[in-house]
Amino acid sequence: MSRVAYLGPEGTFTHQAAVEWVRSQAQHAAGPASPGTSDRAERPDGVPVELVPVQAVTDVYAGVASGAFDQGIVAIESSVEGYVVPSLDAIVGSEDVVAIDEVVLEITFDAFVRPGHGELTEVTAHPHGLAQCQGFVTRSGALPVPAASNAAACRDATVHQVALGPSICGELYGLDLLEAGVEDFHGARTRFLTIVRRDRARDALAAARAAGPAQWRTMLALTPLVTGPGVLARITQAFGAGGVNLSSLITRPLKALEGKYVFVLTADAAPWEPAVREVLEGLLAAGDSVKTLGVFPARGEIDEALSSDHVPVGSVGAGAGADELDRGLLWA
Amino acid sequence: MSRVAYLGPEGTFTHQAAVEWVRSQAQHAAGPASPGTSDRAERPDGVPVELVPVQAVTDVYAGVASGAFDQGIVAIESSVEGYVVPSLDAIVGSEDVVAIDEVVLEITFDAFVRPGHGELTEVTAHPHGLAQCQGFVTRSGALPVPAASNAAACRDATVHQVALGPSICGELYGLDLLEAGVEDFHGARTRFLTIVRRDRARDALAAARAAGPAQWRTMLALTPLVTGPGVLARITQAFGAGGVNLSSLITRPLKALEGKYVFVLTADAAPWEPAVREVLEGLLAAGDSVKTLGVFPARGEIDEALSSDHVPVGSVGAGAGADELDRGLLWA
Repeated sequence: MSRVAYLGPEGTFTHQAAVEWVRSQAQHAAGPASPGTSDRAERPDGVPVELVPVQAVTDVYAGVASGAFDQGIVAIESSVEGYVVPSLDAIVGSEDVVAIDEVVLEITFDAFVRPGHGELTEVTAHPHGLAQCQGFVTRSGALPVPAASNAAACRDATVHQVALGPSICGELYGLDLLEAGVEDFHGARTRFLTIVRRDRARDALAAARAAGPAQWRTMLALTPLVTGPGVLARITQAFGAGGVNLSSLITRPLKALEGKYVFVLTADAAPWEPAVREVLEGLLAAGDSVKTLGVFPARGEIDEALSSDHVPVGSVGAGAGADELDRGLLWA
Repeated sequence: MSRVAYLGPEGTFTHQAAVEWVRSQAQHAAGPASPGTSDRAERPDGVPVELVPVQAVTDVYAGVASGAFDQGIVAIESSVEGYVVPSLDAIVGSEDVVAIDEVVLEITFDAFVRPGHGELTEVTAHPHGLAQCQGFVTRSGALPVPAASNAAACRDATVHQVALGPSICGELYGLDLLEAGVEDFHGARTRFLTIVRRDRARDALAAARAAGPAQWRTMLALTPLVTGPGVLARITQAFGAGGVNLSSLITRPLKALEGKYVFVLTADAAPWEPAVREVLEGLLAAGDSVKTLGVFPARGEIDEALSSDHVPVGSVGAGAGADELDRGLLWA
């Protein structure tokens, strides 16, 4: 039995991501398994898979580190909210856990009702879900009722309620679909990571490497020897000079170390590629501390959320006049 | 009348930040005004201040840009969740709005009850509030009841409910304090920005500069002419070479421009300091587009949330053996 942990209750977007990851494993292996939305599925090698809801994201990390679970699925980045910082901090802070795959999920809400429902006077979801489906809520004329989670709203829906949640909730809680895709803005996506114990990562990655060519990504935590002016330059220059593109970089402060930061970088390459290895060797030689947080084939981009679709309005460029520069830069 | 917009309803943490900002203005000016938690206060120059709740954070930006409000208060960064990305995107995408001050607020929950309450059988808050005060909820033995917001929970509390929310809710909704600081983990902080219309920024900053020396910070949006390996290196090196420390950097994708990013940087200096000006001139000469998003005196650090208080466990350094390197970096 292979056990996969995710943040519960059943019917969360993370649950849906876990189902999709198990299904993708079956497809990648071209095996006969097709797990559907069931929590009991079968891997292509015939090993049954059990998806296990846990109460907190830290339980996913701890359970994978202890060996209680074989894999864990955690949300790491949303196109709307950016990085899921508690999850990012957990993977940075965990010695024994590493990401070996990713799942990109479109965040879309379906409106569900009980079969043979009565008059629909209320609409229920997590407050964020209600906010993301405001148009539908207004159109329905029903009273919005906050729930502890979208999954709980679907699970506990009465015959007078419309519940909003991930599509997985329909089958899971025996609900009828009233309307699909009721969110105000379509195209939001969340990226999830599949985490395993570090001592199992090499085998998992070997299987993925054997499956064929991929665009690999490497997520790294880099703690520079000294911080201050120039440190970011030195680090990013090392990647630039090595021809390794960085698709994302964020800084996280280190508790109790005044002014000291760890950089979380994503490189568009695998750590075993000679160029990456050379960059990492250079950083180590300079006295920096490095940890690989994840290595995975890129499964898709999360949608880009910045409201501007061009250089942000109000930006100034090389040809700008003195007034425009003063206004845009506030440097006078 | 000076009108200050914030994300409502009344009693949010943003409301509390707005009250504190108005109070700090009075203190900085050493004036006699002491606005308390009232929404009608007086600035040191005798101009009355009205705090106005609005329905969405985008309404704060739009209302300040249009001149409907003189200032707006927006949450920008949390010690637990990192940047508030929708707010960050709004300030990057807004031509006419710029930050001229910041407020750092400790996020602490108080437990309130109605005066002369009955048996307390329920505890109510936003689902995030309930999750952040799980110890108190469990200890109380009361049934958790989700609310649309902590402020709404306090406003609508029945005589059988304990409502959890910001301290400002007590006076605001006529509630009695049952217990203060009931959150599980103390020390979480959120940083808020005071935004004004760009054409008013220079006057506001002139007043702050006249008030005495300060540790200034500058928040910049930088859109590089070309992206790819080396771009981050070039930009950060420009700051490093100029001796300007960058305390934060994050990348945000630009919608509809494949692979194109805007960098949001915070420099520990004012844009009118010669070193910063020189760096910006160099970037402009290189063809990059730059916008100053905010200039403000540093009012305090937000607490550092990374669970590790040292170099993340599992990191490897220069002296590491081959096995340790393979395990930490997954590069073999």
